[in-house]
Amino acid sequence: MVKRAENEKAGAGTILTGNITSDTVKKLTLDEKKQLCSEIRTFLIESVSKTGGHLASNLGTVELTVALHSVFSTPEDKIVFDVGHQSYTHKLLTGRMKRFGSLRSEGGISGFPRNEESEHDAFLGGHSSISISAALGIAKAMELEGKAGNVIAVIGDGALTGGEAYEGLNNVSKLANNLIIILNDNEMSISKSKGSVAEYLTRMRSSRSYFNKKEAVKDFLSHSEIGKEISRSLSGTKDLVKFAIYQSNIFESLGLKYYGPINGHDLKKLIEILEIAKLTNAPCIVHVKTKKGKGYMPAEANSGEYHGISRKDRSVPADRTFSETAGNELLRIADGDDRICAVTAAMKYATGLEHIAKKYPERFFDVGIAEQHAMTFSCGLASQGMVPVFAVYSTFFQRCYDQLIHDASIEKKHVVLLIDRAGVVGEDGETHQGIFDVAMVSSVPGTVIYSPFDECSLRMCMKRAVYEHDGVVSVRYPRGLCIMGAEFDYSDQYYSGRNSDTLVISYGRLADNITEIDGTDSLVLMKIFPIPEEAVRIACKYKKIFFFEEGIKSSGIGEKFLLALFEHGFRGEFDLTAIEGPVSAADAETQLKKLGLDRDGIIKKINEKQT
Amino acid sequence: MVKRAENEKAGAGTILTGNITSDTVKKLTLDEKKQLCSEIRTFLIESVSKTGGHLASNLGTVELTVALHSVFSTPEDKIVFDVGHQSYTHKLLTGRMKRFGSLRSEGGISGFPRNEESEHDAFLGGHSSISISAALGIAKAMELEGKAGNVIAVIGDGALTGGEAYEGLNNVSKLANNLIIILNDNEMSISKSKGSVAEYLTRMRSSRSYFNKKEAVKDFLSHSEIGKEISRSLSGTKDLVKFAIYQSNIFESLGLKYYGPINGHDLKKLIEILEIAKLTNAPCIVHVKTKKGKGYMPAEANSGEYHGISRKDRSVPADRTFSETAGNELLRIADGDDRICAVTAAMKYATGLEHIAKKYPERFFDVGIAEQHAMTFSCGLASQGMVPVFAVYSTFFQRCYDQLIHDASIEKKHVVLLIDRAGVVGEDGETHQGIFDVAMVSSVPGTVIYSPFDECSLRMCMKRAVYEHDGVVSVRYPRGLCIMGAEFDYSDQYYSGRNSDTLVISYGRLADNITEIDGTDSLVLMKIFPIPEEAVRIACKYKKIFFFEEGIKSSGIGEKFLLALFEHGFRGEFDLTAIEGPVSAADAETQLKKLGLDRDGIIKKINEKQT
Repeated sequence: MVKRAENEKAGAGTILTGNITSDTVKKLTLDEKKQLCSEIRTFLIESVSKTGGHLASNLGTVELTVALHSVFSTPEDKIVFDVGHQSYTHKLLTGRMKRFGSLRSEGGISGFPRNEESEHDAFLGGHSSISISAALGIAKAMELEGKAGNVIAVIGDGALTGGEAYEGLNNVSKLANNLIIILNDNEMSISKSKGSVAEYLTRMRSSRSYFNKKEAVKDFLSHSEIGKEISRSLSGTKDLVKFAIYQSNIFESLGLKYYGPINGHDLKKLIEILEIAKLTNAPCIVHVKTKKGKGYMPAEANSGEYHGISRKDRSVPADRTFSETAGNELLRIADGDDRICAVTAAMKYATGLEHIAKKYPERFFDVGIAEQHAMTFSCGLASQGMVPVFAVYSTFFQRCYDQLIHDASIEKKHVVLLIDRAGVVGEDGETHQGIFDVAMVSSVPGTVIYSPFDECSLRMCMKRAVYEHDGVVSVRYPRGLCIMGAEFDYSDQYYSGRNSDTLVISYGRLADNITEIDGTDSLVLMKIFPIPEEAVRIACKYKKIFFFEEGIKSSGIGEKFLLALFEHGFRGEFDLTAIEGPVSAADAETQLKKLGLDRDGIIKKINEKQT
Repeated sequence: MVKRAENEKAGAGTILTGNITSDTVKKLTLDEKKQLCSEIRTFLIESVSKTGGHLASNLGTVELTVALHSVFSTPEDKIVFDVGHQSYTHKLLTGRMKRFGSLRSEGGISGFPRNEESEHDAFLGGHSSISISAALGIAKAMELEGKAGNVIAVIGDGALTGGEAYEGLNNVSKLANNLIIILNDNEMSISKSKGSVAEYLTRMRSSRSYFNKKEAVKDFLSHSEIGKEISRSLSGTKDLVKFAIYQSNIFESLGLKYYGPINGHDLKKLIEILEIAKLTNAPCIVHVKTKKGKGYMPAEANSGEYHGISRKDRSVPADRTFSETAGNELLRIADGDDRICAVTAAMKYATGLEHIAKKYPERFFDVGIAEQHAMTFSCGLASQGMVPVFAVYSTFFQRCYDQLIHDASIEKKHVVLLIDRAGVVGEDGETHQGIFDVAMVSSVPGTVIYSPFDECSLRMCMKRAVYEHDGVVSVRYPRGLCIMGAEFDYSDQYYSGRNSDTLVISYGRLADNITEIDGTDSLVLMKIFPIPEEAVRIACKYKKIFFFEEGIKSSGIGEKFLLALFEHGFRGEFDLTAIEGPVSAADAETQLKKLGLDRDGIIKKINEKQT
């Protein structure tokens, strides 16, 4: 009775219970497995609606995951999900159903596969396009260690637009016979997949099963009369036709055995093809067509909207976020300046670029999940006098450090970066926090970093980024609500002096948390790099300085500010609070609190040190 | 007479003179162009033998470049070389012949295309695999600005193994009709190209001209009797055969018009095909087969050896470099520990990994020019208990910052990095200096960085990296001579105290430059991150501290050391000298001198501040 009540509470059915495992799945009949899929779908819709999370992508991979657990056994077999937000069904089938209500919350289960969370999660899957490389490493290690088992990389068509996926593919052939790549092709990642590979997959998709067709041609050529005649008659071109037929698939050209395309919601076919793949003594790719949001009409109809459901941010009006404000301001600037180009790596809506995309489609470029290309492409635009504005999440920006140095900085290309989701970002956990962009950009010569904190400062920083500087200029801002703020005088920093001997310094979203604390003066930096000299002169007058930073401590602005202070003769007290390690999932408010960066924490820190 | 003497001095001939331009080339007859190629070859062999530089790759692209300048006109047309070390002939034909004796030297012309050096150099070409992305940006900007002209990306088959090249390819189709990609396929980059793409190209290469063949098949099918019969008879499979023939090429699958393969030393054919490409109103790829070192027997026979000829380092015995010492030590460790795996991104010889590759081929992985993959692949190996050692040049390591954070750091994978060519590296100039790796690694939580300075410390650091730590451990060392050094006590730093009130601190190669300076004590850090507490305790006793760092100042170790000192109560003088901007080409000794990091500069700095 207890168990049943538990299941009902969790929205589970008769087959999907908290005790379900990979072994249970294997023992089910096909009809029972179909029922399980249905129960999983119901559970996911109910549970994710409450907790927030990635709904559409998980509804698309229910049958695929049940098929995987019908044929393979984790943890002996390894499944690497790319990206990992499609792994919910896998989590349900590997002992985490009872904890599903804690998804993406503080101390709860992660929205991504985490090896630290379960031995069934082979590899961390937060960022895109890494699965083939990781799976290859796992497969080679297993081979060297004499371990049996298959390694399966499940990669979305969106993730396939990232260059690392191709680097992985280029290394697969012959290196790992126990490797199976599942191409989960839903004709889009977050928004529609871009580029030639996506178009190529569309053509493949629209063909009948390639596997069967090829066999038919082989039969045709070798057995039929006309086939023999072709063989005889083709003479010089015979080899070409053979070559063409056998190499006509991109993946086979790269040395992979190819199976597909398969309907990813046909459980029977999926299980059959996975059994074949398992028996294949060569690396192979299984091309599976799925539908994002499958089985839930609202999500099927608009899977973009249901890509990620946020638990907390529903309270923030969509038109009041930093992203949206930045997108609107960029449109305004572009209205008056036809050099402005907008670049995104598959984040058109999330970064607020849809406005400029709609009004100036010829100056808008969505390059797919390809941050390296986005940066170099921007530098190419800049080399001809255009002003590229690359809007990118802080965490994904990490992908183009070399391009920032080599293509942008060395020859001083004027590229504007809108670094979105800077600072802590909430429920996505360690893999998605925006805490490295400042360390990254500030290590590169000739760069400038602005850190606005409200609408007025965001607009001002964007204008200054476009018109006041050459070279790389980054404007970084957090996820979430962007209040209007007051009009300021034109300045690099906002200083509030009330004759204290203690100064509190910060930047960005923390501005609100450090102003008007009893017994202290405050200094909010808007331009954070290079350190504004005026800010250093102001700070040098104080005996005690507290610096709070919503970013990584090591290589951050606090360290640099201290050096600047020191060089200006400061010898008072300097206390730096910043982020020292990975930030785990919780809502952003809780994250700041745990880091001691909320207003209470800041006041407490100051009081402790003052007494 | 003066001109002739000048030409003779420069080794030039009757057509190749210091006044040659793209326009001159266009007016030559085919025979004269062939003679020009011959003269260029003679000039390059003579000149590069003296200056040092990339010989083999440039001998391979003489005809291609003469053909390019026969058909296109820079700077209106843009040529992006990838990588740029194959651009010498282009430099000769665009007004830089007279300066060729200054190649790669201080104040001389760069070994890579530099937009700052000449308007004929469309884009900086130091790092690999960026040409398609850059060319695409240039092409789009020209289109938006209504500028005429073609954009040509010349990309080697080695560079094509980098993921960004694929990200670029994925964005080409339809986006830029004036884009021509020249695949300069010499069956290798520095060492033999690795992976499936290389194998695919080999298959294509070995076929007869695909272009002609396809036309033949088209003719065959549409005009001959048997062709008509095939058309009639194929019925259901007809479409497939058509599809196969027209899509059988990877590049055409990606939406590019494909021409080739063409003999890259047949000037007449090259010019013809480039004329066709120029007229093609769609993005296209021209597949050119070339031979590295063409026309110079020693370089043809061993193009790897002649890839880069170094002017200065000939005096360093090959078996006494840091790279070679590290390679030997790694083999020793691997002898006793079968968990050790060695990973390189196309730098097997340069990083000294050929020894482990030879003895333990099953534990050696050359993944091609694919640093992102190399890092994630290493993490995959580590996830199964292997100990991957990724040997990589500091400058190319910049390609995998995100993988360092996401794949290695967050779940604490034990990956050992051998960061070679750390610090200034000499003649390759701004694009190749190893000055960012410390800033990069030290921003990532849980990492450790060692900076050995001689053979004894290198061996000790490598052992500690493998056995003393979890997580990511970097061992960084410079290019060049590795002296034996003395045996030390096991320690994180080497302190020489003689009762001065002034302490000089540094790490790595600068160790020699800071020890035993009159009136100072010295502290050489071997473990540089996290900052060793003992080192901070020692330093806190001094009144004046000078810190010298062969790395970028902003986000470097100096900043971090000051913060640590400050937190330990230090309030004396702290003077930090480090690298503040890009480092231009010169020999490493001269570079250190210009940066004030040679022994004389260091002594001078200390004396200035002391008085």
